Amino acid sequence: MTAQAPTAPADVYAEVQHFYARQMRHLDMAEADAWADTFTEDGSFAPPSRPEPVRGRPALTAGARQAAADLAARGETQRHWVGMLTVTPAADGSLTAESQVTIIAVPQGGPARLHLVCTCRDVLVREAGELLVRERVVTRDDRP
Amino acid sequence: MTAQAPTAPADVYAEVQHFYARQMRHLDMAEADAWADTFTEDGSFAPPSRPEPVRGRPALTAGARQAAADLAARGETQRHWVGMLTVTPAADGSLTAESQVTIIAVPQGGPARLHLVCTCRDVLVREAGELLVRERVVTRDDRP
Amino acid sequence: MTAQAPTAPADVYAEVQHFYARQMRHLDMAEADAWADTFTEDGSFAPPSRPEPVRGRPALTAGARQAAADLAARGETQRHWVGMLTVTPAADGSLTAESQVTIIAVPQGGPARLHLVCTCRDVLVREAGELLVRERVVTRDDRP
Repeated sequence: MTAQAPTAPADVYAEVQHFYARQMRHLDMAEADAWADTFTEDGSFAPPSRPEPVRGRPALTAGARQAAADLAARGETQRHWVGMLTVTPAADGSLTAESQVTIIAVPQGGPARLHLVCTCRDVLVREAGELLVRERVVTRDDRP
Repeated sequence: MTAQAPTAPADVYAEVQHFYARQMRHLDMAEADAWADTFTEDGSFAPPSRPEPVRGRPALTAGARQAAADLAARGETQRHWVGMLTVTPAADGSLTAESQVTIIAVPQGGPARLHLVCTCRDVLVREAGELLVRERVVTRDDRP
Repeated sequence: MTAQAPTAPADVYAEVQHFYARQMRHLDMAEADAWADTFTEDGSFAPPSRPEPVRGRPALTAGARQAAADLAARGETQRHWVGMLTVTPAADGSLTAESQVTIIAVPQGGPARLHLVCTCRDVLVREAGELLVRERVVTRDDRP
């Protein structure tokens, strides 16, 4: 039998599910500031498209704005779906959240298409009662 | 920092997740009456395909029957996936449930395809202990 | 009004969601032994591709190994997404978990595609505190 990692209790799990729904909604609605505010002040995001992580809210906001502008120029929206989520509490009070993220691209006029399937590993921390991403690493499932 | 909307507790969130799983299963299995019974007696459903909302269980049942007949005629089934769900309690005891809904079309013989990606905003109320939809507004993500 | 099936409480629902996330991750990461260990010793799995269920961990491991080898030979990975999940407790302490499973195929180099949409019906039991599948029946939504 494989030893199971400790599992976050149901209330934390529901909170993390809400967190992702809101965070991805901000991203998909081009709310770049609100999206960046779901990271800690010095939060980092290592997307598959860049050699170095993006770090800090100003850089995160700028990145989200650029991505939104690129999508608008193509007449597309995206929907980020988080699924197959596990949440594991660490001894320091942080949470490790691992999930699959499917990005659906929706051109105006359709049809929608699967754009990317990614694996996401977040370290979440609580500040002033709210969950924030301290560190995010995203890898594409179609790349080695 | 963005002020967070109040979040439904874990037991309500799990209940709403069950609610959608059952409701969409009724729809996808062509159980038109059972599906309409997940709305209040005068519940309304504003789908993207109609200028006016469908209102009341008899009209909801008729709409679901027609949709099922259209699908059967094409030799297809559909699977409605609800994801990225937030549940926000209102002062009057109702719940606002916002989600993404992806509709997968499955022709007999395959292959499955992404049919539509929608945004769903429900007002849920409790009657005799059970959650019901009082008002549903669905918008297509590929339309302005 | 349709009588609702009894619904598992939120803590059990969250546990089952974690269970599937871990179990499918084992499968998709080609961890055949760890995947087989999520079934009971004599657990059975009736996949749509076989006339008879696969029964017992050695046979389950062998099946997962073969599937992983076939995928590797094609240069693909798969991501199993479980959604629209209901969990219903039975009188004997087991849980009936019903869900949709979407399998996304991800060739190296992309693009990802919808591979199959299935309906999954599991009987889950608890042994030494952990959930395990005693019986799984999977049907394809594109077949009668």
